[in-house]
Amino acid sequence: MQTRVGVVGAGLIGRAWAIVFARAGVPVRLYDVDEQALAAARDALRHSLDDLAASGLIGAPQEVLSRIRFEADLTQAMADVDYVQECGPENLEAKRQIYVQLEAAVASTTILASSTSGIAASRFTDHLQHPERCLVAHPVNPPYLIPLVEVVPTPDTTEAVVERTLRLMEAVDQAPILVRREVQGFILNRLQGALLNEALRLFRDGYVSAADLDKTVKHGLGLRWSFMGPFETIDLNAPRGVVDYGRRYGPLYQAVDGERGGDDPWEANTLTRLDAERRHELPAAQLAERQAWRDRRLMALIAHQRALGND
Amino acid sequence: MQTRVGVVGAGLIGRAWAIVFARAGVPVRLYDVDEQALAAARDALRHSLDDLAASGLIGAPQEVLSRIRFEADLTQAMADVDYVQECGPENLEAKRQIYVQLEAAVASTTILASSTSGIAASRFTDHLQHPERCLVAHPVNPPYLIPLVEVVPTPDTTEAVVERTLRLMEAVDQAPILVRREVQGFILNRLQGALLNEALRLFRDGYVSAADLDKTVKHGLGLRWSFMGPFETIDLNAPRGVVDYGRRYGPLYQAVDGERGGDDPWEANTLTRLDAERRHELPAAQLAERQAWRDRRLMALIAHQRALGND
Repeated sequence: MQTRVGVVGAGLIGRAWAIVFARAGVPVRLYDVDEQALAAARDALRHSLDDLAASGLIGAPQEVLSRIRFEADLTQAMADVDYVQECGPENLEAKRQIYVQLEAAVASTTILASSTSGIAASRFTDHLQHPERCLVAHPVNPPYLIPLVEVVPTPDTTEAVVERTLRLMEAVDQAPILVRREVQGFILNRLQGALLNEALRLFRDGYVSAADLDKTVKHGLGLRWSFMGPFETIDLNAPRGVVDYGRRYGPLYQAVDGERGGDDPWEANTLTRLDAERRHELPAAQLAERQAWRDRRLMALIAHQRALGND
Repeated sequence: MQTRVGVVGAGLIGRAWAIVFARAGVPVRLYDVDEQALAAARDALRHSLDDLAASGLIGAPQEVLSRIRFEADLTQAMADVDYVQECGPENLEAKRQIYVQLEAAVASTTILASSTSGIAASRFTDHLQHPERCLVAHPVNPPYLIPLVEVVPTPDTTEAVVERTLRLMEAVDQAPILVRREVQGFILNRLQGALLNEALRLFRDGYVSAADLDKTVKHGLGLRWSFMGPFETIDLNAPRGVVDYGRRYGPLYQAVDGERGGDDPWEANTLTRLDAERRHELPAAQLAERQAWRDRRLMALIAHQRALGND
C-alpha cells in the first residue's frame, strides 16, 4: 500500500488508531499539539504493542512502532498523508478550528475522517473549501481489538471518498460498515442504547438483579451475537427465515416496545442502585484490574476467531 | 446427585433438555405420548451426542444416552422423578390439561418446571392442588450449547422450589437467572426485542443494510457481550463506573428512545425487504447448512470459553 496516514491527537483513541494502521504496514504520523503527550504516547504504545505481541496478535512490536512518526508540528506531520484520522476533543468549536488548520496542511484530495462518536461531521466541515472529502470513521474502543468502524458520510461527501475510506479500513483489517445518512448515535450506539434502556427498566422495576441481567446476555444472547448479527440469528431461528420469525415473535416484541418508553431509565436513582450492585460485584478499586482482564479476554476471543478463519 | 428428572415431550426442546441432564449424570425419563416420536428422538439424540463428542464437549456419548429412558406411559415415566421439565405445545389449554395429568403422576413435592417462552406459569397451574411447586425454567435453544435458563416463579411458587430449581440448573452446568416476577417475554426476549426493534427501524429507514447491521453487532457490540453483560461493559467504559457512564451517555440513549417507538417495526413490508437482503446473503436452500455452521461455531466458542476457565 502507498497510503500514508496522519493521526491527529495522541490520546487513547489516537494511539489505538496508530496501532491499527502501523500493524498493517501503513506509515503513520501521530500528531499532538502537546509535546509531553507525544512522549507519553510513545511509552503507552510500546506497552500496548508488547501486550498484543504476547497474545500472538502482532509479530514484531518494535517494527510496528518504527512505522509511527511522532510529530508536534501539524504542517510537517500532514505534508504527505492521503488520509487523516482526527481524534480531537468532542467539542464542536474545537473541531471546526482543527479542520481549518487541517485543510491548510493537507492536499485537497486528502480524506479527513473524524473519530467522533457524537457530532455529525457536516456540523464541523461545512465551512471548508473541500467538505466533499470529509466524513466520520467512528471506531469502537480499542479499535485494534474491536474491528467495527462506522463510516458516515455527510450530505457533501462524495461516493469516491466513501469508497476509498471503506477500502482503506478493510485493507488495515477493520470491519467497516456504511451508515448511509447522518443519524444521532450512528448504528452501534443506537442498538446498544435500545438494549440498555430496556435493561435499566427491567432492573429498575425489580424484575432482575444487575448480575442476572448480565448473565442473560453473556450466557445467552451474546454468544451467537459474537459471530452472527441479530438479523442472521433470527433468520436461522425460524424454519422459513426472517418473515416466518416476524410472524411468530413480532407481535411480542412490538407489544413490549409499546408498553415501555416515555419515562427516563437513566434517572440518578436507578443508576445509584445499579452502582451499588456493581460495586458489590466489583469494588471500585478493582475496576482497572477488571479492564485489563476484559482486554485479555477480548484478545483471546479475537485469537480464537482468527484460528477458525473467516467463515 | 440423587435427582431423577422427567422430561415431557420428545421434540427439539425436550431432547435438548434430556442431553443437558444426562450429560451431567442425571437419570432422565423422556416421555412422549407418540411412540413414533420417541423412536425418532432416540436417533436424533444419538446424532446430537456424537456431534458434541466430536467437538470435545462431552466424553462418552453412548454412556450419556444410556441414562435416558424412553417412556410412552406418563404414570410409569414420572413415578420416581423429583423434577419435571415440561416441553409441551405452546398452548394454554393443552398445558392446563398436561399439568392435571402430571400432578396425578408425581409426588406432591416434585417440581413441575415449564419450558414455555411465552405463557406465564400461573395461567396453567392455578387450578392444581399444589401450584406452589410450579414455575418456568425457560431455556435458550439449544440449552446444551447456550447455558442461560430463566427461572420464573408464579405468585404461588415457594422460595424453596425456586432455590431447588436454581441449584439443580447450576448442578447440570446451566447458567440460571431469577426473574423475580412474571413479565411478558421474560428478560432475554425483552432485551433481544428492544435491540431488534431499533435494528428494524434503522434498516427500514434506510440508514444501514441488513448485512452491515449484522456486522455492527458481530464485529462490535457482540464481542464483549459474549463474556461480559451490558452493565459490566458500561461499568468498565467510563473512568468511574456506571454512574459516570450514565452522565456521559444517558442523555443520548434517552433521546434515541424518545424519538422512536409508536410505529410497528415488524410490518410485513419491512420484513419482506429484510428477507430479500438476507436471501441475497444466504439463499433459502442453504439455511440448514448455515444452522449447522452456527452450531459448530457455538460449540467452538463454548470450548474456547471452557479452556479459559470460569473467570
